[in-house]
Order: sequence, then C-alpha cells, then structure tokens
Amino acid sequence: MPLFDLPLERLWEYLPDRDEPADFDAFWARTMTEARAHPLDPVLVRQDGPFALVDVFAVEFAGFGGHRIGGWFLRPRGHAGPLPCVVRYLGYTVGRGRPHEWLALPACGLATLVMDTRGQGGDTPDPVGGTGGEVPGFLTRGLGGPDTYYYRRVYTDAVRAVEAARALPGVDPDRVAVLAGSQGAGVGLAVAGLASPLVRAAVLDVPSLTAFRRATEISAAGSRAEITAYLRAHRGQIADVFTTLSYFDGLNFAARATVPAWFSAALMDQVCPPSTVFAAHNHYAGEKHLRVWPYNGHEGGGAEQAAEHLELLVSLLT
Amino acid sequence: MPLFDLPLERLWEYLPDRDEPADFDAFWARTMTEARAHPLDPVLVRQDGPFALVDVFAVEFAGFGGHRIGGWFLRPRGHAGPLPCVVRYLGYTVGRGRPHEWLALPACGLATLVMDTRGQGGDTPDPVGGTGGEVPGFLTRGLGGPDTYYYRRVYTDAVRAVEAARALPGVDPDRVAVLAGSQGAGVGLAVAGLASPLVRAAVLDVPSLTAFRRATEISAAGSRAEITAYLRAHRGQIADVFTTLSYFDGLNFAARATVPAWFSAALMDQVCPPSTVFAAHNHYAGEKHLRVWPYNGHEGGGAEQAAEHLELLVSLLT
Amino acid sequence: MPLFDLPLERLWEYLPDRDEPADFDAFWARTMTEARAHPLDPVLVRQDGPFALVDVFAVEFAGFGGHRIGGWFLRPRGHAGPLPCVVRYLGYTVGRGRPHEWLALPACGLATLVMDTRGQGGDTPDPVGGTGGEVPGFLTRGLGGPDTYYYRRVYTDAVRAVEAARALPGVDPDRVAVLAGSQGAGVGLAVAGLASPLVRAAVLDVPSLTAFRRATEISAAGSRAEITAYLRAHRGQIADVFTTLSYFDGLNFAARATVPAWFSAALMDQVCPPSTVFAAHNHYAGEKHLRVWPYNGHEGGGAEQAAEHLELLVSLLT
Amino acid sequence: MPLFDLPLERLWEYLPDRDEPADFDAFWARTMTEARAHPLDPVLVRQDGPFALVDVFAVEFAGFGGHRIGGWFLRPRGHAGPLPCVVRYLGYTVGRGRPHEWLALPACGLATLVMDTRGQGGDTPDPVGGTGGEVPGFLTRGLGGPDTYYYRRVYTDAVRAVEAARALPGVDPDRVAVLAGSQGAGVGLAVAGLASPLVRAAVLDVPSLTAFRRATEISAAGSRAEITAYLRAHRGQIADVFTTLSYFDGLNFAARATVPAWFSAALMDQVCPPSTVFAAHNHYAGEKHLRVWPYNGHEGGGAEQAAEHLELLVSLLT
Amino acid sequence: MPLFDLPLERLWEYLPDRDEPADFDAFWARTMTEARAHPLDPVLVRQDGPFALVDVFAVEFAGFGGHRIGGWFLRPRGHAGPLPCVVRYLGYTVGRGRPHEWLALPACGLATLVMDTRGQGGDTPDPVGGTGGEVPGFLTRGLGGPDTYYYRRVYTDAVRAVEAARALPGVDPDRVAVLAGSQGAGVGLAVAGLASPLVRAAVLDVPSLTAFRRATEISAAGSRAEITAYLRAHRGQIADVFTTLSYFDGLNFAARATVPAWFSAALMDQVCPPSTVFAAHNHYAGEKHLRVWPYNGHEGGGAEQAAEHLELLVSLLT
Amino acid sequence: MPLFDLPLERLWEYLPDRDEPADFDAFWARTMTEARAHPLDPVLVRQDGPFALVDVFAVEFAGFGGHRIGGWFLRPRGHAGPLPCVVRYLGYTVGRGRPHEWLALPACGLATLVMDTRGQGGDTPDPVGGTGGEVPGFLTRGLGGPDTYYYRRVYTDAVRAVEAARALPGVDPDRVAVLAGSQGAGVGLAVAGLASPLVRAAVLDVPSLTAFRRATEISAAGSRAEITAYLRAHRGQIADVFTTLSYFDGLNFAARATVPAWFSAALMDQVCPPSTVFAAHNHYAGEKHLRVWPYNGHEGGGAEQAAEHLELLVSLLT
Repeated sequence: MPLFDLPLERLWEYLPDRDEPADFDAFWARTMTEARAHPLDPVLVRQDGPFALVDVFAVEFAGFGGHRIGGWFLRPRGHAGPLPCVVRYLGYTVGRGRPHEWLALPACGLATLVMDTRGQGGDTPDPVGGTGGEVPGFLTRGLGGPDTYYYRRVYTDAVRAVEAARALPGVDPDRVAVLAGSQGAGVGLAVAGLASPLVRAAVLDVPSLTAFRRATEISAAGSRAEITAYLRAHRGQIADVFTTLSYFDGLNFAARATVPAWFSAALMDQVCPPSTVFAAHNHYAGEKHLRVWPYNGHEGGGAEQAAEHLELLVSLLT
Repeated sequence: MPLFDLPLERLWEYLPDRDEPADFDAFWARTMTEARAHPLDPVLVRQDGPFALVDVFAVEFAGFGGHRIGGWFLRPRGHAGPLPCVVRYLGYTVGRGRPHEWLALPACGLATLVMDTRGQGGDTPDPVGGTGGEVPGFLTRGLGGPDTYYYRRVYTDAVRAVEAARALPGVDPDRVAVLAGSQGAGVGLAVAGLASPLVRAAVLDVPSLTAFRRATEISAAGSRAEITAYLRAHRGQIADVFTTLSYFDGLNFAARATVPAWFSAALMDQVCPPSTVFAAHNHYAGEKHLRVWPYNGHEGGGAEQAAEHLELLVSLLT
Repeated sequence: MPLFDLPLERLWEYLPDRDEPADFDAFWARTMTEARAHPLDPVLVRQDGPFALVDVFAVEFAGFGGHRIGGWFLRPRGHAGPLPCVVRYLGYTVGRGRPHEWLALPACGLATLVMDTRGQGGDTPDPVGGTGGEVPGFLTRGLGGPDTYYYRRVYTDAVRAVEAARALPGVDPDRVAVLAGSQGAGVGLAVAGLASPLVRAAVLDVPSLTAFRRATEISAAGSRAEITAYLRAHRGQIADVFTTLSYFDGLNFAARATVPAWFSAALMDQVCPPSTVFAAHNHYAGEKHLRVWPYNGHEGGGAEQAAEHLELLVSLLT
Repeated sequence: MPLFDLPLERLWEYLPDRDEPADFDAFWARTMTEARAHPLDPVLVRQDGPFALVDVFAVEFAGFGGHRIGGWFLRPRGHAGPLPCVVRYLGYTVGRGRPHEWLALPACGLATLVMDTRGQGGDTPDPVGGTGGEVPGFLTRGLGGPDTYYYRRVYTDAVRAVEAARALPGVDPDRVAVLAGSQGAGVGLAVAGLASPLVRAAVLDVPSLTAFRRATEISAAGSRAEITAYLRAHRGQIADVFTTLSYFDGLNFAARATVPAWFSAALMDQVCPPSTVFAAHNHYAGEKHLRVWPYNGHEGGGAEQAAEHLELLVSLLT
Repeated sequence: MPLFDLPLERLWEYLPDRDEPADFDAFWARTMTEARAHPLDPVLVRQDGPFALVDVFAVEFAGFGGHRIGGWFLRPRGHAGPLPCVVRYLGYTVGRGRPHEWLALPACGLATLVMDTRGQGGDTPDPVGGTGGEVPGFLTRGLGGPDTYYYRRVYTDAVRAVEAARALPGVDPDRVAVLAGSQGAGVGLAVAGLASPLVRAAVLDVPSLTAFRRATEISAAGSRAEITAYLRAHRGQIADVFTTLSYFDGLNFAARATVPAWFSAALMDQVCPPSTVFAAHNHYAGEKHLRVWPYNGHEGGGAEQAAEHLELLVSLLT
Repeated sequence: MPLFDLPLERLWEYLPDRDEPADFDAFWARTMTEARAHPLDPVLVRQDGPFALVDVFAVEFAGFGGHRIGGWFLRPRGHAGPLPCVVRYLGYTVGRGRPHEWLALPACGLATLVMDTRGQGGDTPDPVGGTGGEVPGFLTRGLGGPDTYYYRRVYTDAVRAVEAARALPGVDPDRVAVLAGSQGAGVGLAVAGLASPLVRAAVLDVPSLTAFRRATEISAAGSRAEITAYLRAHRGQIADVFTTLSYFDGLNFAARATVPAWFSAALMDQVCPPSTVFAAHNHYAGEKHLRVWPYNGHEGGGAEQAAEHLELLVSLLT
C-alpha cells in the first residue's frame, strides 16, 4: 500500500515516547569534550578546475579522536567580506563526489562545506575497528555499546565540521547553517541537538536515524534493515542494541534543539517512513517547519525542495 | 551476467551493417526545410531567483511544426562579450526541472540552453496525435511511419534548439556545442548527423536510439522495451516498424556527422547496451573519442564523466 | 497481505464523499453536444473468414471530434428479425484483437459491437496531442485540464458506440447493453452515467477509473500508477490533477446512472482495489448488483463470471 | 538477454542427439494395449446453457487404467451429416474451464473435444499415487520409473481421447485433428508419435515436454523447473531421471510421427525455449511446418496464431 | 511492513472462533482405528557409516493404510538401559536427508526417530491418488473431502510414528516427545491432539497447518498459498474447502491436547504468521509455553531455539 | 540461463592466467612472521551443556596483530589418546553459532575447531579500521592496499587457527585438516597455500575469493558484488583494486599448495561461479579432486557432500 504509515492527520499528532538513557547528556558532553581536546586545525587546499565563478578547496579538519575528516569547501570567487556558510552532510554510502556537484550554494553567493561521512563513499577513512558480529553496513559497526558505536564518531565529526566552517577564512561564524537529507539529515539533527548555538538554521530533508525501533518495525527498506538483520542473528541483544541506539536517536536530539529547523517528509517514503520524521519534528524543541510531499518516496521534494531551500537559506543568511 | 554484451576487444571492432532507407537524406532535408519555414522566434524571459552569480531565463523557440519548445537559458552574470553556449538534451521522461540543476556550465563561464523534450516531463506539450496501437511510452507514438513518428519532431526541435542558441543575445554562434546522455545523447547524435556545421563538439554519454533491432534483442531494459512490447502485440508489423525506425537510428546519423564527438559507454549498461554505443562510435564519420566504463551500468561515468566534460568544454570553447 | 483493503463488512458500507465539480453536468452536456455535431455515420465492412455460424464485420463510426473509431461487429448468421446487441469496451492497452475472440455472444444469439480504445492496442489512432509533462501511458495524456484529458475522448467515443450499435442494421435499438471489465468497465460506467436511457443493462467487472485518489493511495499496481508517477514529478499539481480527474471519476457517473447495473469486485485485486469498486457500486443510483470474488485478484470471476454474464444477458435481452 | 537461445539460423539446423531407450516402442505398445483393454465407453451428457448456435455436452471416456477422463464436447447446433472434430489438450495446471471458452471451432462448423489433464485444474482426478520424493508439481509425480510416471497416464488418456472423438455420434472418424499449446502441445506431439494414423493434422504451439535436459539447462522458467528442483535435492538420481524422461520426450515421438504437423515457436519464450521446439520440429518425421514469432514469449502467436489455425483446420477438414 | 500481523499485546489475547465439524472426533477415531488395523511392524536396518559415537538405523513402520513409512532412528552407541526418544517431523518438501543431520539429540544421550513425510522429499511414497483439480503442491491433494485429504494420511503416519518409537528396542515408551518446526510442528500439533497420552512433551516451532482461512488472508507466502491458488481457480468451492480443512486445523487439535507444549512464534514470519501460531497456543488445552522472536521470520529462533530445546528435552526426559 | 558459465568440458581445461604480484611470497612471509611474533596462547574454557557424548569448549587464540580470535572446540567425551582435529572456517556473514551445530565431526570420533571470522557474525571483533570509501560489507574494508585489506587479517587468523588446533591438549598435530565452504573454503585455500605442511587435507566446497575479476564479470551475486559496487563508485581505482586483490586471490594460493585437496563446484552456482572454482582446482599444485554438482546452486552438494566428507576425513585421519 503506497500510504503504508499512519494517516496524515495522525502523523501531525504522533508523539511517541522517547527512549532516553539517563546519562544521555553526560555521554555527549564527555564525547564532545574529548573531541575538542584535539586541535581542530582546519586546512584548505585550493583545487584547480574549470570553475570561473567559484573557488574550490579540499578541506580537512580534526573530527572524533582527532581523525582527519575531509570535504570540499566552495565559495563565490572574488567575494570580499565574510560570507555565510552552509554545512552539508551526505546520504548513506555516498561520498563527497566532485566539486561540480556542490555549485548551487556558491552560485547563490553562499560558501559551503561538504563533509565526508567517515568510512563511506569518499576519501575519509574510519580508522576504528568494530565490536564484532557485524552485518554488512555501517549501522552495526561498533554496536556493542555507545562508546564504540560508529555514529558517535560521525555525529562528533559533524559538530566539528560546523566549528571548522566557522573558523574558515572569509566565513562569518554567526551565519552558518546545516542542510542535508536522509542520513545527512539525521546527522544534521544530531548537530542541532548538540550544537544549536553554533548554527542559524537546520534544514533536514527526510531524516533517517530517528525512532530506530519503529523504523525497523514499519519498513524493511533503507539502511536500518541492517539493524533488523543484526537482531535477526543476535536474538538475545535486542534490549542492549536499542539501549545503545537510544544515545543516537534523532528524537532525543530534537528534544534538545533550539535552532529553527525545516523538516520535510514524504508520505510514500519506505526508507525514512513518515512517522519517524514526524516524530522528530513533533518532538523538536525549537521553532520548526515541516513540508509534506504526498506522492513521493525517499526522493522527497527533490529538485523542487532544493529550490525552496536555496531561497530559504539566502533569505535567512544574507 | 554483468558483462552481458560482446567482449571489449570485439566491441572496438563491432561495425554492424546499417539499415538505411534510400530516401533518408531527402526525408530529413524535407523535414528541416518544413521546420525552418516557421520563424524561430526565440524568446527569453528573465527568472527571479536566488542566484547571485548566474542569470536565468526561460527560453522558448519554434520547433517542429512551429510548435513552441521551452527550456532554460543560463549564463554567468555580468559577463560582457559573446559567450560559448552548450545545448543540453534530456534523458527519457525527464523534464528540464529547476534552474539550479544546470549551474555547472555557467559556473565554468559558459552559457547553456536546456531543451525540454516535447511531451515528456517538462512543460512543453507535443500537440500531435498518434497513429494507433500504442503501448504506454513515447517510443511507439506515431510509429505508423517516418512522417508521423514522435522522434521526427524531437530531432527537429533539437536542431532548432542549436539554431536558437546561436541566435540568443550574448552567445557566440561559432562556439556552440551539445552535451547530453542517454535519450538526450541519441538526440544529440541526430543533431550531429543533421547539423554538424552548426556545432563545435558533440559530447554524447551512453546514447540511446541507436541500433534499434539489436537493442531489443540483447536487453529487455530501457525505453526500447516499448518497441518490444509493440512488436509482441503487432506481430505482423516487424519489418515496417524497423523500416520506420531506420530513419531515426543513430547509426545513420553517425555516418553523416563531421563534428568531433566524445562518446562514453558502460560495459554493464543494460539500458544502452555497449554494442549499441560502440556501433554508433565505430560508424561515426567525424573525429571521435570513446570513454569506456568497465564496472558501470547506465549511470556510466556519472559525476566523474561530468567533471571531465566540464574541463573538455572549457578547453574547447574558451 | 492478500486482503489488503477494507474488511468485507465495511466495504458494503463504504460510501466516500464524491469530489464533484460544479459544472460536471454542463461539461458533459457540452461534450456530448459537440460530439453529436459530427454525423455518426456507422459503416460496416464484411470480413471473410472461417466462421460458418457468425457474420463478422469491421465497424467504424464517428467518435469524439468526429474521429473515426473502429471495432468489430458480429452477429449470428442468417438470423432474420432485429437482434439485441451488446457493446464491449476493452481493458487497458488491449486492442480489439481478432474476431474469433468475440464469438461467445453471437453463439448465444446476440449481436456484439467491440470498440477500439483510441490510441491503445488496436487500429484506431488518437489524433490529439497532449498537454505536456506526460509519463508513459494514457492516464496522463492531456491531463492539463478536463477539456484536453484523454478519457474525455474515450468516454465520448463509448457513448457514440452505443448510438452506433442502435443504428446498425438488424439491431433492435431498445435491446442494447454494455459489458466490459477493468478499463472497459470504467468506460461502461461513464456510459451508464451519460446515457442510461440508451441501454438496458450495464455489466461492469472490476471497473477501474473510479475513486482516483484512494486508488493511488491504496495500491501501486495498475494504470493509475501513472498518475502517481506524474504527481511524483509534478509535485505542485496535485489539487489541479484531482480536479481534472473529478470530471472522469466513475463515482460521479454512478450517482447519475439509472440503468440496472451488475458489478463485480475481487477482494485480492490490487489493480482495481475492492474499495474503489464498492464505492462505485454503493454510489450507484440505479438498480444494482455486486458479485464478490473472495480469493481472486484482477482476473475477478474470470470464465465463471463470463458464463454468468452470458446467461444474464440472454435472459435480459431475449 | 531477450534472445537467450541459439540464433535463428542455427535453430533451423539444431538436431540434437535423441536419448531413446531401447524398449521405447515396446513400452508404449504395452501401455496402449493395457489401456485399450478397458472399454472406451464414451458418454455424453447434454448441458443446458445460453448457447443458441452450439450444442454442449460433458464427455467422459476411459483413459489409462480405465480411469474416467472428463471433458467438453461442442458441435454446431442442427448440423446434419458427420462433422470433423478437433481434439484439444490443455496447458499446465489449467482445467477445461467453461464451455464458452471453446466456441471458436464450433463457430467455424467443426466439432471439438476438450480433454481434462488428469489431476490438474479441471474435474478429473488422477487416482494414482506417486513414487516418493516429489517436489510440488506434476512433473515429478511417479518419476521413479517410466511405468509409474505421471505423463504415461496423460499421454495414454490423450490417445484415448482421439479414439473417443472418433467414436462420438456425428463425428467423422477420418477427419479428426489435434490442436494444443504448451503442455497440451507436448501431449499432442505424443499423440502424433503414438497414433498418427488416427489423426489428420497435429497443430502444436510452443510445445513443452521436449528435450528435457536442455530445457533444464537453458531456462529456469516453466514447469520443467520442477525437474531441476527434484535433481537439486536428489543429486544421485540424475541419470535415472533422464532415463525415465526419455520415454516421454517429444523428440522421440516426433521421430515416429507421420501425420502432418504445424508447430510454432517464439524466440523470447523462456518457458518453452525455442531450441527445444525447433529440436522437435527438426526431428519430426512427417510433413511439417514451423511458424516463428520473433518478439514473443510463451504467448507465442496468441490470437493471431489462433486465427491462422482456425483457417487451417477449416481448410484441412472441410 | 515487517510487523504485518496483529500487535504483540493483541496476539496474546487472540482467540478466534474455531471452525470445528460436528464429527471431528468421530472422524479421527475412525481414522485411527482403521490405521491401527494394520500391524505396526517397525523394522530397523543398521546403517554403516563413520559415526563412532552413534548407532544409526533406517526405520520403517506401517502408517495410514498400512503403507510403509520410512525414517531414521539414531541412538547413542553402547548405551545400556531404556532411552528417551524424540520423534521428529519435517518441514514442507524436505526429506529425512542424511543421518548426520540428526546427531544433536543422540549427542545429548537421547534416541531420535525422524519420520519421512510421505510423498515429499525423502524416500517414502504416498501411494494414494488425488481428487482432481490440484494445483502443484501437497496442500490440495485429495482436497475433495476429509477422507481423501493428504494430511489425513500424514497425521495418521505421525501418530503411528510415536507408537513405533515407543515399540523400538531400547526406547522407554514413557519418555517419548515430539519436536518439529513449520509443517512438522503442524503435524506434531495434530499428534498432541490425537495422542497426548503417548507423549511427554510437544515442542512445536512456528507451526503451520493452523487457522487456514486467516492464513490465506494475511499472507501470500508459504505452502498455504497453494490453497489460495486452488480457490482462485475453483471459485465455487470455498465453503467446501474450508469445511474439509477444518478436520485438519491445528486449532481443533490444540483444543484437545493435554500434553505440555512449547510453542515458538516469530513476529516477522510471513510463512506462519504469528496470529496463526498464537491462535494455536491460545486455544491449547494443556500446559503451554510460547517463545516469541521479535525480529525473525520463518527461521524463528533458529540455532538458538534448537539449543534451548536440547536443554529442555534433556531436562524433561532424563 | 541456469548453466550460465562455460560448458563442463571447457571448465575442466579452464586455466586462466594468474595475476600475481612479484612480492606475493615476501608479503605473506612478512605477514606470517609479524603474526607469529605474538604468542599464540590458546585458551580453552569448558562449556556447560546437554551434550552427554561430547566435550565443548570455547577457544581463543592470537590471530593477526595478536588480536584474540574466538571459536568452539569440540571433542568426543572420554577419549584417551591424541585425536585428529578438523579446523572449520565459516561462510560469509555467519558466526560460529551454537555448539550443537558442530556435532557431526565429534560424533565421528574427531575433534573440531571452529574459527570465528573476525568482525562477522560471531563474537570476535575486527579491531582494525578501514581505508575509506567502503561500501557496506567486508570485501571493501581496507581495500586501499594489501597491508590494510581485511582478508590479510582473516587469512592470517586462519593459519594461526591451524597452529592453535595443533597445540590443543589431546590433538595429534600431525592429523589436522581443514574443511569449509564458500568464504570459508576461500580462507581454507589460503591456508593450503600458506601452510600446507601443517595440514593433512584441505576440503573446500564451492570456494569463493578466487579469480576476483572474472567473478565480478560473470555474476552479480554473492559478496563479490561489493567489489563491483566499489568499482562502480571509484571508477579510477580498478587497476589498484585488482592489484590489491591479487595478494588474496585463491588462484595464487592454489599454485603454491602441496596438501591434497578436495574441491566441489556446482554448475548453477551464481555465488561462486563454476569457472572460478575450476580455475582454482586446475591451478592447484598438490594432489587434487573435484566433485561436480550439475543441478545445484551455491548449496552445492549440501548434506550429501557433507556425508561424503565425514567418510573421507575419518578414512584420512583415523
């Protein structure tokens, strides 16, 4: 059934209990403190290329554990004063790709920093091993506990990416926003929960990494199927796994965020089922907006949504 | 089997007989003459938007039958002298989308004109009816004969798009190229065959609309499956259908083209099987290049190929 | 889940609000008036063939826009007086096929007229262009508004087919019925809504073209998936598209029909979900019957249903 | 690859070695002798119904083991003298269905007898048990040896059906033919091999039950996949199974047939791969014809082929 | 949706009405009396093999109709006194396989008897024919009535297997249990209903053959799809078929069982949907236990469940 | 096509060129030397359980990098003298599971050591990070070079597992063999190439991890599809990736092995295509045997093959 989740009117009211560990804030405070003990040390390396209107740099900075995290940094060529900057996080398994894929924001006069998701797709390794029993995929890496879980490192990298963007030459640190979709939007939601004061807006399309248990129960699609596969094989670890995941659930970050957020959800999205997105939106503690796409799957609003976001970010940041 | 087509060494030598009707040139000469009887009348309408570095216009011109064909025209903002322009044709069922999807060329200092494929995706209707017995899809529209076949109109629109690009304000008519993939590359190959003198380069990724019969025999994927479905139902029309299609087969345009061409093919591409692309390349009469992607399907070289093409077009046209 | 729709007891009570435009009747009155301005001009051409017991003719008459619509006309050989006649409409993408596919009614002593669905399958072209942005398939042709929508032409052809049948030599105009399934039954329901006085019975198996919005929400199968695909790409047109479709929704025809109707529905039918059929039945204003097939998909009652219908039509019309 | 089998020019020459047991003829002679020891005892029971032009009877006769085999018998109503009769065998899992499905031959002035395939679909049981180790399906029933194999009974029934047709009132025993497709055509080919003198023509569309080993090696589709499943589980029985099947392979019947035969094959037919049909045709010892459908799957020539066959049978038998 | 059935809290309360024929007990009493009229005559044949610690025998005994039913019998080598014995029934289409597949129970010091399911997989034929109209598979064999239905024979064999186990040399007849999954567990549930006094425990993982109608309505997977296929073709037999099946529905056996039972169910099991298992558990009249696997499909608890069962059986029987 | 690879007669002669790096031996010598610098330190922990005839231990030893590698060790209870021992490696993503899954060898009087594949399935972590750009799965972990590649660690663990087995109490170090399938057999082949003197037999069913490039070209199934996915995204690394993989290709280990080997291949195996298995067998330098299963997929000889292997190992080792 294309409309496989709750009816729209119930989605707007859908506010499931959050499963939040008592030491959630302590865990993340400790995590961020440890990460910040490593100097951020952002480095830009200018890239040759055919782009007459845009300056392109490879960027690198210290993420979780001080590991060097790569990305792209683009800005309109020849612009004088400090610029707003939009930080981008990536969808699952995707790398940062080629600079020409990230020209829209600079063409609107904004700088942008694109962060590799460690291990996945791009050039940034995740130099940390696992805790055993993994199924193929990143969702079960280090799933033995919150300290070792893969997304602890990714979320931390993402906060550090915002800090790096604020520290880059020509960037106005008071005009930084995050913009991402799917896994990237889940990461961005964590940033909103961990570092709202550092950003002016969080634009989050069809976020994943929220409401993990419901997600596994309502859809077999998407990366969370890796969790299902893990629990199918490790039958005795269900409670432990969801305890670990509760440290990384977007719902708990939403409840802490204060930066204004723009969500989107698609009613036929099996990868990020609408109830898992609405749950995040409905729990979101800051100013919030939610765009609903009734006839779309995980592509959500696609190019149309992107066009709206360009207008939004220009109006917010310039 | 992922490598489902001929082995690579045989692909380089694959030169199938072309099925060419005696009046091929007369048919197209007549077609172009009729189309040019309608004033081209290109019209630009400036679009508002967030793009600080690029000017965006809706464009419209007279295609086949004088029908108005829409598209986008983008150029770097504030550039003085005449600019090169790259004409883009679209993949099957896709519309012109949103302007921000077409920023890469302007960011490199080139103008670009994106042409809607009539009927499909975008806003441009195909105001012509069919010849009956259609299966869902555009490949069987008007298949009753070459005069009525849908791609007669599309190919003609495409030549007129080049002519429109050359006539737009600020465009240097001697520095126009075409760049497209899949259906768009099939259309671009027709332009190379019909109007080589009007363009400086034809960049054609994984073109379709070539070697129709072989395509239906070697793969069930892609839009040519519509032809298979048609012939499954209209068993007695096989010879007639392939006669009609011979007026539109990229192999026959390749044999007439003189503009330098850059092809690409992917060895695991079921949609545009490599032998149908190599056949076009091997028959191509002008200077030619072919990039082979051994582990890709119809996505071909993707963003990596696009990056190469940006460099290529900048070097060729500026 | 095989029983994917409402439970049977709720289906019998399922009476969704109809979405009916204010000018529905005016639109169709105008449409029929325009069509009838073209002389009907039915023409029969006798066909050779091996059929010792049945006379076979190709038939042609003026449909929407005066376009010539083709079909078959068969009647028992050597029958003297005026005969009842059953008009048949076809399933999606299917053409009229071969005369031997339509022998059952003549073998029962009834004449039958089989109408090509313009554009689809058979030999009858749809000589009208589209309004742009189409996805492959007929459901999105001319979807820019009710005047241009493809089914305006098909429904009009269907009423004219009844008028043609009534005018054919040897047919008793007071004993004409319609019999069809799936798309054909949707067309037949429109005929019941537009021309009940002209027919004695409407026999409609698993009709499509009803309750468009629900159909797209409850199932991804069948031709209505083309509408979903269209709305996925044209996100801003949802309201407009359903306004256009409301002129063609079987529910609105059902509410106007007075001729006795025999429906059938199959509880495991993903193509024409049972709730969309029950909705039509439950809104039907005339005498009505509904046969339910609990373990069938879109094949519905198949040959068993057909056998019942032959008995029914013989008893009603002779 | 749609054209998955040998190229057409090699198909015409494809004459694989036949695997024929030494006692093939003795086995079948013994089998037929045993069957004929049971009185044929054909019984007709007139059926009520709406068919004004055709008389319909349920028919029953003694097949293998004297088991009663059911079917339909239809003939043009009110025809005086002796009529030709066409015997029909059915596709896999299909039953005889309803009488109105078999009107085409009577409408052409021919009688027809439709035989249930015992066990499958219709009302005729197969009252014989198996030899163990079956996978779901009829292809492995009794596969422990030729005496117990299911198709020994079916082929015998089929010869007895011809004998019954010749004995029915109003049938001219010298003008009997067989007409069937898929499994039915495989059965009909066995009849041609076992009882050519009893029939005037064998019309066999896309026959199965030929070239068993090649069939399992070239395609995973169709009922022969049951043999593959059996051999996957019973690894040590490969040689024995193919020895058993050699008593039932259409190639061996083809080599013995003398009645003129009309075959058809479809080049994209995965269910009855073209090489397995050409092999039967090429080995066929009598006058033979083969119709090739280049763009069809197992539907073969469909209604078009059926129309040709009606003309053919009328011309041969009347 | 992975959790496609009722929510867990409703599953625990799910107690559907049982459809029980008035003569259920009489039918089975008569059936068992007839079977016991044949001498059980268990025969053991020692097998050579590499097993140093275990004695392996082929076993054979008289099942329904006195037909010889085969299996394996294994016991720890060199054990003196009488041993407990666990009787195993098999999953659908599976044969008894090789002795080394059944070593776990003997390695725990228990004897085990593995019964072939007649007809399926192993070496034991089902020498009884059908009642016609079958679709491929065993679920529709003899479906014309309870006397002829296939599972009448299988359930009877299964009771006789327990009786055989109790009669084997070295087995303690008071310490016999049954252990099985899927079809085997359905069979074991019938044994619990028919012969509770003969066994000490029934360990039944994800049983099938329960709640037939609901099973066909909630899932298209598993062997019960054969019933759906049958009813799709035999539209008029729905009531009769479910009446026949009511003699074989595990719910009716559950309501009669007194032996302690250990069930398991998996919440994502489409083959044996959880509600059909909970229904059996909830109706079970004896002491009962139910293990729920939240993230598993039809594999249920797999090796983990098997490990629990070994511990359970050792503790119950030794 | 079920027989999708080379014909059987060509498989027996299939001896593709090996792609072997010049420092292959040096690389592995260095690797093993480094690993052996860590004390092996095998530790056994007796497990409670229901197994009356078998002693079960958890085992742990130092693998690559000194990382602790876990597994099971089982031996017949109460056996005095030194025993042969069979080392088992596991299929892709599978963990060591439960002890009762490994009883067959002890039941035959042999000890057995089952090694966890680090990271996958079981309890043994792979505490090493990756080199970036991974796709989900282990085949691309550390693919940046031979030093960092995941299987360097696994193959080293496997040699150390043999060394551990030889050092365990009660094991006769001169009677150790390896037995594995699929990934495990690929691992076992590496052991044969690296440590033939330490083992008496290598029994390798449908091995993977051989002929990497051909494997990616002939089949899209199995874990090697991860390599295809990697190369689809990292188009420029094809040569580098296959250079890295050449250090891990079973063909190169086969050419160095001297221990007698028993291979098996299945002709319909898409996961480990037969040509990739025959290539390993045909290059194998020691005494070799190859069992071919004509009608099987990746399950190969299944329980029948396992039965043969039990007999073989008992005859070789006792």
